[in-house]
Amino acid sequence: MKKLINHPKDVVHDSLKGVEATHSDFLKVHFEPNYIIRKNAPINGKVALLSGGGSGHEPLHGGFVGYGMLDAACPGEVFTSPTPDQILEATKAVAGGAGVLHIVKNYTGDVLNFEMAADLAKSEGVMVESVVINDDVAVEDSLYTAGRRGVGTTVLAEKIVGAAAEEKLPLADLVKLCRKVNANGRSMGVALTSCVVPSAGKSTFDLPEDEIEIGIGIHGEPGRKREKIKTAREITELLVGPIVKDLPFKKGDHVIAFVNGMGGTPLIELYIIYNELAKILNSYGITIARNLIGNYITSLEMQGCSITLLKMDEQILRLWDAPVCTTTLRWGI
Amino acid sequence: MKKLINHPKDVVHDSLKGVEATHSDFLKVHFEPNYIIRKNAPINGKVALLSGGGSGHEPLHGGFVGYGMLDAACPGEVFTSPTPDQILEATKAVAGGAGVLHIVKNYTGDVLNFEMAADLAKSEGVMVESVVINDDVAVEDSLYTAGRRGVGTTVLAEKIVGAAAEEKLPLADLVKLCRKVNANGRSMGVALTSCVVPSAGKSTFDLPEDEIEIGIGIHGEPGRKREKIKTAREITELLVGPIVKDLPFKKGDHVIAFVNGMGGTPLIELYIIYNELAKILNSYGITIARNLIGNYITSLEMQGCSITLLKMDEQILRLWDAPVCTTTLRWGI
Repeated sequence: MKKLINHPKDVVHDSLKGVEATHSDFLKVHFEPNYIIRKNAPINGKVALLSGGGSGHEPLHGGFVGYGMLDAACPGEVFTSPTPDQILEATKAVAGGAGVLHIVKNYTGDVLNFEMAADLAKSEGVMVESVVINDDVAVEDSLYTAGRRGVGTTVLAEKIVGAAAEEKLPLADLVKLCRKVNANGRSMGVALTSCVVPSAGKSTFDLPEDEIEIGIGIHGEPGRKREKIKTAREITELLVGPIVKDLPFKKGDHVIAFVNGMGGTPLIELYIIYNELAKILNSYGITIARNLIGNYITSLEMQGCSITLLKMDEQILRLWDAPVCTTTLRWGI
Repeated sequence: MKKLINHPKDVVHDSLKGVEATHSDFLKVHFEPNYIIRKNAPINGKVALLSGGGSGHEPLHGGFVGYGMLDAACPGEVFTSPTPDQILEATKAVAGGAGVLHIVKNYTGDVLNFEMAADLAKSEGVMVESVVINDDVAVEDSLYTAGRRGVGTTVLAEKIVGAAAEEKLPLADLVKLCRKVNANGRSMGVALTSCVVPSAGKSTFDLPEDEIEIGIGIHGEPGRKREKIKTAREITELLVGPIVKDLPFKKGDHVIAFVNGMGGTPLIELYIIYNELAKILNSYGITIARNLIGNYITSLEMQGCSITLLKMDEQILRLWDAPVCTTTLRWGI
């Protein structure tokens, strides 16, 4: 294993120290328990948005803390859910009197720990609601998941619901909006290579030199099938087909098209995938109203990508365009 | 070779098609010859900034075209200089009457082709000046370079000089500023793995499973030495030492600290390197005034990173903070 780390047990700590050192102008990093919050938290009268999950998917979620997105992110150990205690402390740190919304990716450990934290917070008088994101069409149940996994739509939900929270929408309306985003988002990914979890020290799975895995999970969970390496056009078709069919997306729909790198894929390749995606959607009569291309929800150094489509209405479009200021997404400010 | 591509010969074309499909709100992509320009080019009375070089280093340079940075980028084939004709056409496309500044990384092919293009443009009545960036302290001469290679400082120069160009500074002043940035910037990189040039189909170099290469070039050119894999702390020291000693950076200096990913390194590791860098600079009495962390000048899917330090004065700081709106860097707008 070759990684730019000091010791596997220090990966999350050292990386959070790096975040603390870089972005102290608008972020605050708390250690033991670990969480990242806005420097000006709690914000009175605003619903606080909190998300979290295992580390190793950076910039998710810490890179999305800031104006117009999250108030707090709880990073667990690599590919390991944050603890209920950690989520509880972060929840209390950002609660500004209007309640806290937990945005949870659908993995069994995450769902369980966020539920426990929400119950504890409620017992301490903090209003908490949760929305579970489950947008991955690849498989119905998975290695760490009952039902569909939560992937790329999480990023889009954090942006869109975050914008609505800045407009001081009440908690119930944000829950409704977040569910709408989840209901209209669909994703699927592909891996060209495995990743190496630092504490394991070896590849999570083996993939022959000429094979790819369609429908891969962000922790390397098995996908739908293995195929011989194909052209970018063919791979894009294998991802887009199931996504479009599932919602289904229809002729005349307007979407956000999100091409996400798994961490180890060069940007030049993501643009090639985006080009194929644009051509395919055009042939379906689906309009790309907005796009996002880059490494946003990653799997350490895995090579591959995922595609997320989110059907937009006027509200979602307006909130997507609203100002945002995080380390990762920044516009309008 | 597993890549998200259609065919090695189509990589640059297909990727540029993707850029065209995503960012047509403020970019225009021209094909044969290939270049990316601002949609509103040429801008009357503003010096136009143009950079370019081989593809495979994305987002450099196309991701830096836009308000406050470049007016044009010329992408060559992967790791291959753009042609004089290509640079000439792009130069003419953005020339707005106040001249054009070419920012050139010091690689023999780039320097030669930019020189030829500049001569041709001048013969057609376009005022052109060039500044060569040569900030890599690793080696004196290299595989494709007489003198030092141009790396991370290029990104910083494009931002800083781009901001000054928006203020309508004359060409001669921008040349002076760009030379100042180059004179005050120093970089060095490390590779954990090689990259695979699509047309070659195999690794550019071989690096044993337990070795790293200190002082790597962005095309995989040999560095200073190979070492056994070390801790992030030790690797950072091996990069920062020669950088600091070279300028030299001194106690009391204020710098931009730039930790750049080579394309295949997860963000979590770049933050670990940044944390070590911040501690080391602190021990030297050097203040990090601004920072930049992420994949900005890459080497396809290579794992590794580079560190760039740029000594700041008030002018550089002010121009760094000035508004910018590209696909990659965006703030203040």
